[in-house]
Amino acid sequence: MTYFDYAAATPVDEQVLAAMLPYFSEQFYNPSAAYPAARRVRHDVDAARAAIAGTLGARTPEVIFTAGGTEANNLAIHGVLRAFPGKKIVVSSIEHESVLAAARQYPCAQAPVNAQGVVDVAALAALIDDDTVLVSTMYANNEVGTVQPIREISRLVQHKRAGRSSGLPLYFHADAAQAANYLDLHVARLGVDMLTLNGGKMYGPKQSGALWVRSGVTLEPLVYGGGQERGYRSGTENVAGAMGLAKALEIAQGMRRRESARLQSLQQLFFALLTEMIPGVIINGPRVRRLPNNIHVTLPGTDNERLLMQLDEAGIMAAAGSACSASDEAPSHVLRAMGIADREARASLRFTLGRATVEADVRQAVVMLAKLAGA
Amino acid sequence: MTYFDYAAATPVDEQVLAAMLPYFSEQFYNPSAAYPAARRVRHDVDAARAAIAGTLGARTPEVIFTAGGTEANNLAIHGVLRAFPGKKIVVSSIEHESVLAAARQYPCAQAPVNAQGVVDVAALAALIDDDTVLVSTMYANNEVGTVQPIREISRLVQHKRAGRSSGLPLYFHADAAQAANYLDLHVARLGVDMLTLNGGKMYGPKQSGALWVRSGVTLEPLVYGGGQERGYRSGTENVAGAMGLAKALEIAQGMRRRESARLQSLQQLFFALLTEMIPGVIINGPRVRRLPNNIHVTLPGTDNERLLMQLDEAGIMAAAGSACSASDEAPSHVLRAMGIADREARASLRFTLGRATVEADVRQAVVMLAKLAGA
Repeated sequence: MTYFDYAAATPVDEQVLAAMLPYFSEQFYNPSAAYPAARRVRHDVDAARAAIAGTLGARTPEVIFTAGGTEANNLAIHGVLRAFPGKKIVVSSIEHESVLAAARQYPCAQAPVNAQGVVDVAALAALIDDDTVLVSTMYANNEVGTVQPIREISRLVQHKRAGRSSGLPLYFHADAAQAANYLDLHVARLGVDMLTLNGGKMYGPKQSGALWVRSGVTLEPLVYGGGQERGYRSGTENVAGAMGLAKALEIAQGMRRRESARLQSLQQLFFALLTEMIPGVIINGPRVRRLPNNIHVTLPGTDNERLLMQLDEAGIMAAAGSACSASDEAPSHVLRAMGIADREARASLRFTLGRATVEADVRQAVVMLAKLAGA
Repeated sequence: MTYFDYAAATPVDEQVLAAMLPYFSEQFYNPSAAYPAARRVRHDVDAARAAIAGTLGARTPEVIFTAGGTEANNLAIHGVLRAFPGKKIVVSSIEHESVLAAARQYPCAQAPVNAQGVVDVAALAALIDDDTVLVSTMYANNEVGTVQPIREISRLVQHKRAGRSSGLPLYFHADAAQAANYLDLHVARLGVDMLTLNGGKMYGPKQSGALWVRSGVTLEPLVYGGGQERGYRSGTENVAGAMGLAKALEIAQGMRRRESARLQSLQQLFFALLTEMIPGVIINGPRVRRLPNNIHVTLPGTDNERLLMQLDEAGIMAAAGSACSASDEAPSHVLRAMGIADREARASLRFTLGRATVEADVRQAVVMLAKLAGA
């Protein structure tokens, strides 16, 4: 079987699993306990936190471990909007479901995107009014791979914030769930106030994640209790998960330039072969400023559910869209926001590449697609 | 080293870890993806859910996986209280911090306990008014081991509910985090509407847990997004954690009668030796209807922080109270609610036994305690 769904899930790297294993049965102590064996576990969790903070160019206590990316996004959004009741959030129209669904609980405006899925920054600026306390946009889109102009948006937010006299804050949160394998995560360079990390998308364990929160950001807790994670996310720490997340991030960021270059050449090959072998094929999303592992394609006249089944029979695992909304029969909100008609959306497939993907996989996939599309 | 802090953390059982391991790197697929390999993972998660439901005598979809016990308690409390804004919750005064801190976000009343930590059911009844939508009490206390009269409370709640004409619900939630290793979890026999399970306290992985929610209970989600866990707790499933929780519960409930009997005799030996060897020792908590693994003792005139250090030097890991509030310098709210003076509380230690505890450990602990107490 050839796996082309790395945006939905990644296998846990063997070094990551090795970093986790001691904390299940040997070093199982509660990090809040007082004896030295437990304090060593506390120390290891803090070392993991420090390593993550180091990668982000941030301070160690600013990293809040969460049970995954969805929870980190929820902590950012509920955390700020509950701290400022009645105030407003502005998001893009192609955010992950965890951002959109959380944002919908509050006064919310959605900024449009262009045909490539790039946020319209001027439109976003117009939506930020005096009641807006949070802007949340993803760093890179999970369906079509568009990398958003985060620095441009952060400059906009800083400008709006500087011109404000009400005393209300205006924060900028970015969801980097899909970005961590390929893009720079230095928070000062990005200019963000909060950043979501998701272990399950970077060869770490599922439901490991973190929200980086700049010191001074006002946030209500998501989960109340014993006061772990500086009170923002109580509960005995997922020690193995924290160790796994830190190791996964270290590996991902350590190899990101090399791996981005490798995957980008496979991506370009994928695009070239598609265009060459399948007349009428449409490649969705941008050609530049795109995640190097994302291919999103429309094969006009086909049905993607049927194609997926046929691909699976041929040993190829791909996706019709985000697995996160797989149970949802409605066409992708991302493709709709990009102006892609529902008929085209239903003829579209996503292939996401990863560490095990090699050239032969790409060639096999396009040959099979061409065959199934009757080309 | 001899470990006496099983109420704070348990090592992951080797069978539990074995049940988890395939889902990190081999069966890593996103359970929401469409291809058969992912659907097999979905099937395995549902089988874990069904196994847990079976143990509870419940229906499979009623089990909601959470990232641990604290989150399950938060889902129960925020879930109900946010669904009925302005309404009230009644808890006992010796609940876990995760229940107390979540409950404090809403109109809340605390029922007192007696000197053994048993909830005063008559007082609880008097606190349930027409605005009360949720009663939450723990099944067994984490500090002194008191087993609460859950059936009596559930009959009370049912009676109050039956007498209600407003249409407002009245639910009963029990936190079984400390109970699952030793007590019956059949939800119909208990008469509860929601039940918290915590993998990290039953030889399963940390931050694995579940909230059982009876069909028909009205609950707002805690984490919004892709709609996993029937929309109550979105986020790509912690597949390994779900498999681990199910296996841990199966093992714990399978051995609970045998292990309860074994530990109860060690507990009685611990009590007998304490009384015999340390004049003036006070055993806190009840002598009956108590978790078989809990020993809570006051050594008048001593300082528990100092004792813990000395015990650790002698190779014994014990606790001064709940690890969950270890960072909190205030004396235990549980001991205060039982009428124990702060001076006595500061001279108190908790020993919690577990699967690796043997008679020699108990004898060693009491001999050392007697020595340290100058007896």
